Amino acid sequence: MASSHSISLHNTIKTSINLSYAKSNSCLPPKLTPNFSHSTRPHCIKLSVVAQNQPYWHAIESEIDAFLDRSIPIRKPEAVFEPMRHLTFAAPRTVASALCVAACELVGGNRSHAMAAAAAVHLVHAAAYAHEHLPLTDRTGPGPRPEVEHKYGPNIELLTGDGIVPFGFELLARSVGPARPERVLRVMIEISRAGGSEGIMDGLYKEGEIVDENSRFEFIEYVCKKKYGEIHGCAAASGAILGGGSDGEIQRLRNFGLYAGTVRGLMERKSSVEIENIVRKLRDLALKELEGFHGKRNVELLTSLVAEPSLCSA
Amino acid sequence: MASSHSISLHNTIKTSINLSYAKSNSCLPPKLTPNFSHSTRPHCIKLSVVAQNQPYWHAIESEIDAFLDRSIPIRKPEAVFEPMRHLTFAAPRTVASALCVAACELVGGNRSHAMAAAAAVHLVHAAAYAHEHLPLTDRTGPGPRPEVEHKYGPNIELLTGDGIVPFGFELLARSVGPARPERVLRVMIEISRAGGSEGIMDGLYKEGEIVDENSRFEFIEYVCKKKYGEIHGCAAASGAILGGGSDGEIQRLRNFGLYAGTVRGLMERKSSVEIENIVRKLRDLALKELEGFHGKRNVELLTSLVAEPSLCSA
Repeated sequence: MASSHSISLHNTIKTSINLSYAKSNSCLPPKLTPNFSHSTRPHCIKLSVVAQNQPYWHAIESEIDAFLDRSIPIRKPEAVFEPMRHLTFAAPRTVASALCVAACELVGGNRSHAMAAAAAVHLVHAAAYAHEHLPLTDRTGPGPRPEVEHKYGPNIELLTGDGIVPFGFELLARSVGPARPERVLRVMIEISRAGGSEGIMDGLYKEGEIVDENSRFEFIEYVCKKKYGEIHGCAAASGAILGGGSDGEIQRLRNFGLYAGTVRGLMERKSSVEIENIVRKLRDLALKELEGFHGKRNVELLTSLVAEPSLCSA
Repeated sequence: MASSHSISLHNTIKTSINLSYAKSNSCLPPKLTPNFSHSTRPHCIKLSVVAQNQPYWHAIESEIDAFLDRSIPIRKPEAVFEPMRHLTFAAPRTVASALCVAACELVGGNRSHAMAAAAAVHLVHAAAYAHEHLPLTDRTGPGPRPEVEHKYGPNIELLTGDGIVPFGFELLARSVGPARPERVLRVMIEISRAGGSEGIMDGLYKEGEIVDENSRFEFIEYVCKKKYGEIHGCAAASGAILGGGSDGEIQRLRNFGLYAGTVRGLMERKSSVEIENIVRKLRDLALKELEGFHGKRNVELLTSLVAEPSLCSA
């Protein structure tokens, strides 16, 4: 079953090669080609960082995929679990879940400890995505949205989104055993905040105020930070918590995720010089957070998440 | 602030005196008068059980009210927290939250240990209520719904509902200290299930299949069990878990809550002889579950939740 719905990080990594690919959150095309228009200088090192780390990300994404596949079998009541499974796997992937696992390993933890948290991060995102694309009467909000194919009626997609979030918390609560209870509870607070009122929800509220791409760029940055950055920061921090990282490590990884996720959100918008400048600034900040981990196994993997060729011109 | 939004259990208790008050989930009238039409036999004992226990329920509801009031101050981002607070207090009350506290005390626990769980139960219910009343394009579902006054646009109410659920889990995760971590995690699983795919969500899915009051009564009972019973059962079990109850006590209180909540759901539907028969059966089952607690302080309080005058005719 998992194969037909495979969670794919490839798209995300490929997207990071194409700064000018606008508004691709919902339906990334299967083949993206790098956009080198911003630079004629060599960027092969950065690209190779991306390329050489793909097997690692593939392995993580396959494990999260398999974990979700086992966790959401189609069981009774089927009318509930069939759409739940569908919407879980239909949501476009973010790197947040894989970042959770990578952060856990970076601080020396076993990836199995972070698997439920990674799944919960994806579920919270999938629910938000489903609700973001509901056809609502008199919807006030960020204007036209990408056309999304709806397999179910809006009522079912609404209810299913509502069912997915608690299910994510249930998975997490059940993960005690490999993970320690007090760590799991900390992670729940992280995911509650980033997936809720202080993260994705706040971003979605504010997104409605972005009238066009001429809105103030700081405001666009804020929206991307809330809608994308916080959940990536939370995912990285959660992985570090579950892996037994120190407070300093947790904070640095949270910051890294926040910057990396915000960059990802910005790169899904229409490119402009201003947006590129913000991306460049955030990318530098992200890499700075990783300095404390130099020499550690896997740190290059995280670097690859913000490696991005058009920025080589900086 | 709390006073203007006071969570009121009175309505619920009063409703339980009025079997024929149909479909009152959203806007209970401020004054309900007992409906004695089904019996001319004495029912003063049952009514007195209700009356004498009201101060206890009032005290619990005030505490939950104050807890929520402190937990959801209007803070930044205000665009998120103002509607979150509004929808939290605007949702009609159920007895589930108070039952959680009462069950904790019944097994000898301190009510402060159950306060966050009681709040989380209300938040999960409030979010489901908000989403149940969203105006959705091409909504397929249980036909016309009660008119609900919307203070915010549907987009905001959708997002706010999405923010409320994780916030409930956050409150719960933060309650470690008074409550023990392993108990809090058990309660999270309880609330995830009852508030999600195996409870409220399943009930709301299936409710759409109730074409009219001539649907099979067993099916109506099933819907009420899912939509109302499970969350009451979960609330009672959660209170018992947090209060340190034995496995037997937790199970009996879960069953009691399941029956009592289902009765409550059935009583909000249009009355009929068949529905009354089911209510009577469930009420007897509920009281049977309390037999093991005879002699314990507070057991009469729980009895009062299913005491209901029109059933005195049985």
